Amino acid sequence: MNEINGYDIEDLHVGMAATYAKTITEADIVLFAAASGDNNAMHTNEEFAQSTEFGGRIAHGFLTASVISAALANRLPGPGAVYLSQNLTFRAPVRPGDTVRATVRVKQIVLDRRRVVLETWCHVADRLVVEGEATVKTTSKTSREAKLGGARDELAAVLE
Amino acid sequence: MNEINGYDIEDLHVGMAATYAKTITEADIVLFAAASGDNNAMHTNEEFAQSTEFGGRIAHGFLTASVISAALANRLPGPGAVYLSQNLTFRAPVRPGDTVRATVRVKQIVLDRRRVVLETWCHVADRLVVEGEATVKTTSKTSREAKLGGARDELAAVLE
Repeated sequence: MNEINGYDIEDLHVGMAATYAKTITEADIVLFAAASGDNNAMHTNEEFAQSTEFGGRIAHGFLTASVISAALANRLPGPGAVYLSQNLTFRAPVRPGDTVRATVRVKQIVLDRRRVVLETWCHVADRLVVEGEATVKTTSKTSREAKLGGARDELAAVLE
Repeated sequence: MNEINGYDIEDLHVGMAATYAKTITEADIVLFAAASGDNNAMHTNEEFAQSTEFGGRIAHGFLTASVISAALANRLPGPGAVYLSQNLTFRAPVRPGDTVRATVRVKQIVLDRRRVVLETWCHVADRLVVEGEATVKTTSKTSREAKLGGARDELAAVLE
């Protein structure tokens, strides 16, 4: 683990998984509309949304998918990881009050580039609502210790 | 255009483009942290963020990318479009106060399935910060008129 409680690349192995769950409330949808600028009637106008194929307001796809961001940032790899890319497919609508469970699972590790590819899913109960794949850059114990060693050698050379 | 001021699939052609811009404020970052559950110190702790390679707080990648969602929902194809998928690559950090300009451009139209593929970019001034590709389902004037025609025919048959 790194100093802020995230996994180093050396701690990871293919198949490791973690989950983060969050209830998507009406307040979250309002906040997300404001933060993103996406005030689509589908998300903010119950009367309009009832007239559509969805039969009522649904959460923004990116709001649901952002629970994946929370799973990566809070759980696996956790603090210290930097998001490089994410593919998303939106499979089913999420409604206010639904609890979104984001699961991330290590698919591939590129040790020398500190890159990790993770499969990512969001479920509401047993229903798949979003799926995709993320790539993140993690911290590395080896490179941290190499830097420390280098600093020690420099200091020793100065003191000699 | 459809009845809620969005483009029908028949209105679109390859190369059509639109832009939506939004300043990412400190308030947006706080709101996004709450709505997503991603309270990573990189986004919410200035002292910690100053100690990292970024030298200060940065916006969540998904917050920046969500301006693409606003460009699709508000501009092109606009109201009535349903998000099917999005690929994202995060190229550079966005800081509180940066104005993110999302551009979407029609790349491919699949008329019979009402699918549109759009290239998507986010810039801060001239700097590319996010790029990717979106697929959305749009409304269709042809299918709307076919439904209306069907209803008219049914009515005529009843009245005969």
